[in-house]
Amino acid sequence: MPTTEALSPTLELAFELIRRPSVTPDDLGCQALMIERLERLGFHVERLPFGDVENFWATRGHHGPMLAFAGHTDVVPSGPHLHWDHPPFEPCIDEEGMLCGRGAADMKGSLAAMLTAVERFVTAHPDHHGKLGFLITSDEEGPAVDGTRAVVEHLREAHERLDYCIVGEPSSTTRLGDAIKNGRRGSLGGVLHIKGVQGHVAYPHLARNPIHQALPALDALAREHWDAGNAFFPATSFQISNVRAGTGATNVIPGDVEVVFNFRFSTEVTHEQLRARTEALLDAHGLEYQLDWTLNGEPFLTAEGELVDAAVAGVEEVMGYRPELSTSGGTSDGRFIATLGSQVVELGPLNATIHKVNERVRAADLEDLSRVYEAILARLFVNGTAQP
Amino acid sequence: MPTTEALSPTLELAFELIRRPSVTPDDLGCQALMIERLERLGFHVERLPFGDVENFWATRGHHGPMLAFAGHTDVVPSGPHLHWDHPPFEPCIDEEGMLCGRGAADMKGSLAAMLTAVERFVTAHPDHHGKLGFLITSDEEGPAVDGTRAVVEHLREAHERLDYCIVGEPSSTTRLGDAIKNGRRGSLGGVLHIKGVQGHVAYPHLARNPIHQALPALDALAREHWDAGNAFFPATSFQISNVRAGTGATNVIPGDVEVVFNFRFSTEVTHEQLRARTEALLDAHGLEYQLDWTLNGEPFLTAEGELVDAAVAGVEEVMGYRPELSTSGGTSDGRFIATLGSQVVELGPLNATIHKVNERVRAADLEDLSRVYEAILARLFVNGTAQP
Ligand SMILES: [Zn+2]
Ligand SMILES: [Zn+2]
Repeated sequence: MPTTEALSPTLELAFELIRRPSVTPDDLGCQALMIERLERLGFHVERLPFGDVENFWATRGHHGPMLAFAGHTDVVPSGPHLHWDHPPFEPCIDEEGMLCGRGAADMKGSLAAMLTAVERFVTAHPDHHGKLGFLITSDEEGPAVDGTRAVVEHLREAHERLDYCIVGEPSSTTRLGDAIKNGRRGSLGGVLHIKGVQGHVAYPHLARNPIHQALPALDALAREHWDAGNAFFPATSFQISNVRAGTGATNVIPGDVEVVFNFRFSTEVTHEQLRARTEALLDAHGLEYQLDWTLNGEPFLTAEGELVDAAVAGVEEVMGYRPELSTSGGTSDGRFIATLGSQVVELGPLNATIHKVNERVRAADLEDLSRVYEAILARLFVNGTAQP
Repeated sequence: MPTTEALSPTLELAFELIRRPSVTPDDLGCQALMIERLERLGFHVERLPFGDVENFWATRGHHGPMLAFAGHTDVVPSGPHLHWDHPPFEPCIDEEGMLCGRGAADMKGSLAAMLTAVERFVTAHPDHHGKLGFLITSDEEGPAVDGTRAVVEHLREAHERLDYCIVGEPSSTTRLGDAIKNGRRGSLGGVLHIKGVQGHVAYPHLARNPIHQALPALDALAREHWDAGNAFFPATSFQISNVRAGTGATNVIPGDVEVVFNFRFSTEVTHEQLRARTEALLDAHGLEYQLDWTLNGEPFLTAEGELVDAAVAGVEEVMGYRPELSTSGGTSDGRFIATLGSQVVELGPLNATIHKVNERVRAADLEDLSRVYEAILARLFVNGTAQP
């Protein structure tokens, strides 16, 4: 049976967080645990509950630029515990040195690493330059409405400045810190209803088959070159995820087709442009349609600057290799924070097991991650790379 | 309240048939009623039940060509009686002279008209030239397996000759006898599964979207010119009736697409040709797919001959106008009878209300229809146009 002899402060805190089965939007005391330790360090803490979502905003220091760590205490459901090698909410270090449990990688391990990094940094530099912040939510894995988004609106109204933000999302792919996300593509969804005239397949001249009408238009959308991407983003991608037409009857021409699609878009186009171009293409095909749009997230990009430089250098200093910058993957809460004008990077552990059974992360990686966070703090606030 | 004073023999029999709610495959005594009257006329009757389907084959006469009337005693369900102006299984003649009730048009009215036509004809010509037949089933509106198809196989094995067949399906469109169907298109169905590789919309390079792959191939199928039809048939038509792809999740590229389609085809192509051309087109698009075919019916055509001549002349004689020949509409039991080498026409009342609530037919039309049937009999078997 793997046991826990002398756990490091980072792992001890990760254990305490994982023990709380804080499935979205539940926090179950995770934030109280962090708040207690932050207040002990001299942080001023503002609890910001919205709806059934717990959030807090904690700051320390009064002058200079603000660097905040951002993260979430909520986790996705574990599924049946039987499918796990170890119970998902009873953290342990297994024979291979892996910290096991729901949230180990996404992202209670990161929360522990950032908190102990700040503890060491503040102890070593009680009168540090700059301001430190924590933006913590319990709604990242859910609707993401009353979490980071709401807190960001609160900060905007309070004219709070947020120069740099490190989001603890698991960004690494094969070894700790090998990838830092300095942006994310935008996500724009559409639900398209193409209307025809229902009829019997034996009398096609009395009907208008909306499937047949839709095919060339959808093919044109699927082939369209929306942009070429840029140095940071791959080309904008259009994908149809769902198509529904017909009642199941094999002799009826249906009256409409429903098509669900999604754009993942770069900073080379705006969502307004994508909407206009899509509608122009449908119009050019003479379709009768209804199209409902959902903007899931604007793209954001922190192309260069002190934060990216410090993050790259921090990884290199601690790990001995240079991270790649990447904007791949889905949306993250970084998209909300970036609207404050902040430089934003996502830097966390390996993402191989997130949202899966047997979620786990190398215990040693969390120690390294905490040292990387500390190195970034030192570069920005001690070595003075941060702009006042 | 519309009542029934002195009903003609045709309407009286139609009333008796409609009163029996013989929803497929139930016959509920309709055939017994017909058999009793046919035996009284000297017909030899062979009951041919298959499965839960009642059928019979009745013949009179021993020499010369055989003319058979074909029809069905089963009806489609009435749906809720509340939606009907008159109860569907309580026949009546309404204020406008319409016979109302389920089966009035499809096709208990025709059954009554053919039976009284034969009664008058046999009474007038007890030693008529040729043979008379009745091929009656209770499975036309259902799976159509144990009905006409099975009886035809029985006749084939018995080497029974069937030169001419008049099917009583409602062929008329705006006035009685304005259209005679002398053929029907074939029907070929396909269920196509196009396979891709499932994935997340944020990582399209790791997936292969089967919807996107399917679009150009389906568009090519929808645009394909399968044939130009001929003097009797419109061009072969391809229609997609159902498309299903995706789990409902908007961020998942699905692993496959299901497409259900149907050909209505002329005598200019065979179903083997359609299958081969469809598969060649899918192959040319490089698709990975599975395709299951169902041949619902071969096309049949009675282009010319004594039966068509007699039917056209019979309508003209009784009604004063010339009917059109047509092959439009769905499949019918004629497709099975034609495989015996018979000349087949479909001639019956107006089809405007079939399978609907308030199914009805002009009462006077059934009298006319009975006289048209009698006129055709006279032309073939008295005036001697039939080939011995
Ligand atoms: Zn996360
Ligand atoms: Zn019918």
